[in-house]
Amino acid sequence: MEKGAQLYEGKAKKIYATDDDQVVWIEYKDSATAFNGVKKAEIAGKGRLNNEITSLIFEKLKEKGIESHFIKRISETEQLVKKVTIVPLETVVRNTAAGSFSARLGVEEGTKLSRPIVEFYYKDDALGDPLLTDDHIEVLELATKEEKELIKEKALQVNEVLSSLFAELNIKLIDFKLEFGKDAEGNILLADEISPDTCRLWDAETNQKLDKDVFRRDLGNLTDVYEIILAKLGGSQNV
Amino acid sequence: MEKGAQLYEGKAKKIYATDDDQVVWIEYKDSATAFNGVKKAEIAGKGRLNNEITSLIFEKLKEKGIESHFIKRISETEQLVKKVTIVPLETVVRNTAAGSFSARLGVEEGTKLSRPIVEFYYKDDALGDPLLTDDHIEVLELATKEEKELIKEKALQVNEVLSSLFAELNIKLIDFKLEFGKDAEGNILLADEISPDTCRLWDAETNQKLDKDVFRRDLGNLTDVYEIILAKLGGSQNV
Repeated sequence: MEKGAQLYEGKAKKIYATDDDQVVWIEYKDSATAFNGVKKAEIAGKGRLNNEITSLIFEKLKEKGIESHFIKRISETEQLVKKVTIVPLETVVRNTAAGSFSARLGVEEGTKLSRPIVEFYYKDDALGDPLLTDDHIEVLELATKEEKELIKEKALQVNEVLSSLFAELNIKLIDFKLEFGKDAEGNILLADEISPDTCRLWDAETNQKLDKDVFRRDLGNLTDVYEIILAKLGGSQNV
Repeated sequence: MEKGAQLYEGKAKKIYATDDDQVVWIEYKDSATAFNGVKKAEIAGKGRLNNEITSLIFEKLKEKGIESHFIKRISETEQLVKKVTIVPLETVVRNTAAGSFSARLGVEEGTKLSRPIVEFYYKDDALGDPLLTDDHIEVLELATKEEKELIKEKALQVNEVLSSLFAELNIKLIDFKLEFGKDAEGNILLADEISPDTCRLWDAETNQKLDKDVFRRDLGNLTDVYEIILAKLGGSQNV
């Protein structure tokens, strides 16, 4: 597989073409951003950690029957994935109130919700990724009703698998963000990454934050806690 | 009917008890507020206009089979209504993109939506009335799923009646906000007010704004345009 031209550069990743038009090459960057890019830093090792954590999680999801765009990790900071067109919805699953949910709705952080909920945000940096209702998704034609329902169903399946997985590691999965894409045949596929950048993960006993809130809220060294997650998932630094 | 103790003072109305514990006495104030109370003014005549416009609209809805809390108008600025406990949802129906919908979602103001949509906001000034998804309403227990669906259905019925009514008056009903309450038997009843404070109303030919955006956006004299709406609805200043 040969690396081709850069197709896109996001806040945390660069995407390159390959000599297979159904496959793209992802490079995880060491950039950390929060609050829609207002807070930024370069953190050595972050790209490696998220690349390995995401790869391990997508592999574990596959073992449980949940397909994603992930093909294989090819270096410390790179992986190959199926080419998809990203659906412009950020899909958030919440098990416990935290972050913007707590702030917007006045629910104390740490309050367990009576059931997992799924939220959709419009993936649009210029608009600040606004929250969407079902009606918004339909009238803005961001996805069809069927696509949205399928994404919701898949997101809740991912939640079941990951909640169990992390519970075994003595970690609470508070909430997380997923992105989905459409492949060349129009199939909706789990995409993007699943890492401490996109999940809230709390130590089940101490509630220590083991995720990007360490960076957002200046709670310590980001790579230290990402290393804890990687180690618990059974990862190593060796490819 | 005797006016009793003041029960509540909101941004635009005061509510008093009466000697009938199922009836409350509403006094419309001359206060205008916008942006969750950040912009304020006293505008002589506003209370009278909204009291009469709301009374006329609730009567017209009743003629079309849509019940509300409204009993009767008893003075220029006062009306009697059935006592209800307000459901903490601000229910917004949108036919055309405008205001916060346009700003949040990047849809040009004036863009007709492919179908009317209903949005719910958490009626909580301290939180700034945040947008809610169906899941939020259920897990925060702001209403049951059945109540929410009933409110949505009633809101769309109100939209059909009012869109036709205003179309006959050469006015476009762009969007509007409703509130619903529960009466002593637990029935969900349309409540609050329906006026140019709570509707966006545009002249069908010129798109002149005939609603509170005149105040929000400093577009002219508020009572001048509210008088236009009252006159078109066939109202007078005499009780």
